[in-house]
Amino acid sequence: MIELALVGIGTGNPEHLTLQAMRTLAAADLVLIPRKGEDKADLAELRRTICAEVLRDAKTVVAEFDLPVRDAATADYRRRVDDWHDAIAEVWMQTIAEHPGARRVALLVWGDPSLYDSTLRIAARLQPPPQVTVVPGITSVHALTAAHAIPLNEIGAPFVVTTGRRLREDGWPPGVDTVVVMLDAGGAFEALDPQGVEIWWGAYVGMPEQITVAGPLAEAAPKILAARAEARARHGWIMDIYLLRRRAG
Amino acid sequence: MIELALVGIGTGNPEHLTLQAMRTLAAADLVLIPRKGEDKADLAELRRTICAEVLRDAKTVVAEFDLPVRDAATADYRRRVDDWHDAIAEVWMQTIAEHPGARRVALLVWGDPSLYDSTLRIAARLQPPPQVTVVPGITSVHALTAAHAIPLNEIGAPFVVTTGRRLREDGWPPGVDTVVVMLDAGGAFEALDPQGVEIWWGAYVGMPEQITVAGPLAEAAPKILAARAEARARHGWIMDIYLLRRRAG
Repeated sequence: MIELALVGIGTGNPEHLTLQAMRTLAAADLVLIPRKGEDKADLAELRRTICAEVLRDAKTVVAEFDLPVRDAATADYRRRVDDWHDAIAEVWMQTIAEHPGARRVALLVWGDPSLYDSTLRIAARLQPPPQVTVVPGITSVHALTAAHAIPLNEIGAPFVVTTGRRLREDGWPPGVDTVVVMLDAGGAFEALDPQGVEIWWGAYVGMPEQITVAGPLAEAAPKILAARAEARARHGWIMDIYLLRRRAG
Repeated sequence: MIELALVGIGTGNPEHLTLQAMRTLAAADLVLIPRKGEDKADLAELRRTICAEVLRDAKTVVAEFDLPVRDAATADYRRRVDDWHDAIAEVWMQTIAEHPGARRVALLVWGDPSLYDSTLRIAARLQPPPQVTVVPGITSVHALTAAHAIPLNEIGAPFVVTTGRRLREDGWPPGVDTVVVMLDAGGAFEALDPQGVEIWWGAYVGMPEQITVAGPLAEAAPKILAARAEARARHGWIMDIYLLRRRAG
């Protein structure tokens, strides 16, 4: 039986690696690295850098594979994601089959494997089913709060983590004064009444390219949109995240 | 000016330490370690073990201090917490003053310094104000999902992180089907209708003592309560966390 380790590697700072992640990678027979296309070439490069550093004295084989693309012709969002996960699982199985001696296989996962990530769902599609272990990683949520040196929650209070799409469609989530927004294609906070709302925004959090903006939402929003557009044009891709807090009502 | 680094150390597995955490501790002149009383002696011991390991070749001084206790005579909860944070800030300042050569000071914080932790709020009370940096750490949320090898969120869906007190008082949070509960003094999930709800519970997540229970809430609840009581009696303290998911409605 294949032992498949999903290893959280943090958000792009090689120093986010934990001792557990390093030990797990060094003990692997095979590490799979996806190529995500030109736009995110820096991310594949970062994975290569981490592997080169961690696996210096190990016998681990590193295998790259081309990540399938989502079929834009499939209209239904859930169906499109499901088909895509099937296709990725197929490529994993092919790549593992090309290394018949490999029993311990590892995958480097951005952030943490549990948070807005497909890796666990893809792993569940593999045949025969592997034994899956998860190594937790530093998430962009905590890279963001660290960058701003702010608490995530108010004392004893709840918070919501959601997506840009949901914030845009549903507005401020009920029952909370703190909201973390991930996977925003850009500016979902513009759908909110900015009155009494503060924002702490970051792009490429934890990486040398890190940019942050914070302040009252009304003042910070145009700064964020400008910084985001400029950085996206310069790097060819962007990953950002933000925390919104409103005065307790 | 004092540089104060708040260093997330993960949830009790020394292998949760990141390279950034290790480098920051090794570069510190002074590391402060709280003694939390007999009940949590194992936690202070873990901090000592981490320091001994990481600081083997460093010139860092490790100073322990007795953590003040909350004044149970203060009726108001927020006031009691505020007074307690003031008292802790006072002890930090005294301990730092005892080491006049120390410019870089570090504190080891369980989990991550942003998540249900007081350290940032205490640091904000120091006079003169230090320059505060935060090193993100593995949280019990991700140690829990790693232990169960489960995703935290459903695809594209939001989730709430809340406390046992809030779950007990307010019931299932509005607008979400996934809830993570922290700081539960015990069995707040008993206040919920268990119909259609699954639970993934863990105590001492990431530590050798780790215990997990998962299943439909109705069946798992009595098992969790029994395991919790037994473990608490045996160790003298318990830290647990759980994720609840209901069928999307």
